[in-house]
Amino acid sequence: MLKLIGLGLNVYGITLEGLIEARSCEKVYVELYTSIIPGLTLDTLKKVIGREAIPLKRKDLEDECERIIREAGRYDIALLTPGDPLIATTHISLVIEARKKGIPVRIVNSASIISAISSATGLQIYNFGKVVTLTRSSPPSLTVYNVVEDNLSRGLHTLILLDLDVEKGYWMGISEAVDILEAMEDEVGRGVFDGDRLALGVARVGSMDAIVKADKLSRIKQYDFGGPPHSLVVPGRLHFMEVEALLCLVGAPQDLLKKS
Amino acid sequence: MLKLIGLGLNVYGITLEGLIEARSCEKVYVELYTSIIPGLTLDTLKKVIGREAIPLKRKDLEDECERIIREAGRYDIALLTPGDPLIATTHISLVIEARKKGIPVRIVNSASIISAISSATGLQIYNFGKVVTLTRSSPPSLTVYNVVEDNLSRGLHTLILLDLDVEKGYWMGISEAVDILEAMEDEVGRGVFDGDRLALGVARVGSMDAIVKADKLSRIKQYDFGGPPHSLVVPGRLHFMEVEALLCLVGAPQDLLKKS
Repeated sequence: MLKLIGLGLNVYGITLEGLIEARSCEKVYVELYTSIIPGLTLDTLKKVIGREAIPLKRKDLEDECERIIREAGRYDIALLTPGDPLIATTHISLVIEARKKGIPVRIVNSASIISAISSATGLQIYNFGKVVTLTRSSPPSLTVYNVVEDNLSRGLHTLILLDLDVEKGYWMGISEAVDILEAMEDEVGRGVFDGDRLALGVARVGSMDAIVKADKLSRIKQYDFGGPPHSLVVPGRLHFMEVEALLCLVGAPQDLLKKS
Repeated sequence: MLKLIGLGLNVYGITLEGLIEARSCEKVYVELYTSIIPGLTLDTLKKVIGREAIPLKRKDLEDECERIIREAGRYDIALLTPGDPLIATTHISLVIEARKKGIPVRIVNSASIISAISSATGLQIYNFGKVVTLTRSSPPSLTVYNVVEDNLSRGLHTLILLDLDVEKGYWMGISEAVDILEAMEDEVGRGVFDGDRLALGVARVGSMDAIVKADKLSRIKQYDFGGPPHSLVVPGRLHFMEVEALLCLVGAPQDLLKKS
């Protein structure tokens, strides 16, 4: 059997189910390239799950997919992944290939920024529209602009995930992201990423030292959010409880909220 | 301090962080009315967390909010909740009131159907639009119709959560939900819930005996999905990997996928 087990959002983010399943496997692999869990290394992971996990790079999982599936046909193997296992779309092909070969697959869920963004910000999950990822690209793609504009036109919030490439040691910070959004605004000029737009900078959601700041887009980029991962949220129409939450929980400037 | 701790999606769905935090509190409360975790009772919970948890009903949390916050001002208390703590919008007011009184609040995330729906169905989280809840109401509200129609117009999938009232012993099953959607279709007639529409019935996401079926809406309601909680997914435009996933993972009928 192939077990995909989520590690959640911090060093102790694996569920009891995940721990039990990982311990019962013959072999435990881990990939730490689809996202970053603050403080999680092979050493801390070993302390938490009580056994060695074999690290897999992106290339390993792509090139040795066949071998891993063959292994899963002979005995139970686990693949630990940051967050919730299939939020990173990369692993669905592994699951499909395994199932095509008749290998049972089990997914053990854990916390993901997709739902945790709601507790981090106080914004209601029912008011979020489509999620989008901002990547570095040249020429810049306007996907993020269009998604946020479309969500805003419906009064919906947008979670913007920021690109990272752990293996190349690169992660996009909030200030780089805002620079890209401002450049889009200069190009398109429909006001989606106007400097006065209310936005939330969110760092390390779900970990002990998470930081969330609500402010104008032009000011958000001046904060020091510390280490990765970073994200942005562009709120749509705010329910009064969401206004209260932004004021009380993330210290949003009162004058900004009156405007929305 | 007030700690809101997610219990995730099954009996062992609490994270290690949640377990550590719950064990270190003076007092542990639990509410089991905002959702249903298959197999979770006060007894099984006691076995998992190693101590008694005091059950709170909806009325307790509403009427005794002040008392609980005062308690949290004197010593550490935990409130365990199904899924991820703030997905149920009910608890945000408790968090806000506590913070207004200067009481520190800590949220311990866990798995939620909001992200787990992706691994349950193989549909990519980036292709989902706004989430919506179908409630029993008379006359029926057309919110669900409008949300799904709007998501479909953008090619996006919709997760439809089905109403439940644990304290009244009521939960909406997929077949009741489809009846309501068909009645809406009869009223509105724009084809959103046409009997031939591809839909996924999803029961007990994240638990060992989860069931996911993809079929025409008119056929979905004939399956026996077993116990709660149930949900529906109406897919929008499908990426080829999503088509593969629906075929391999949830046994979608091939002729239905060709049409979308």
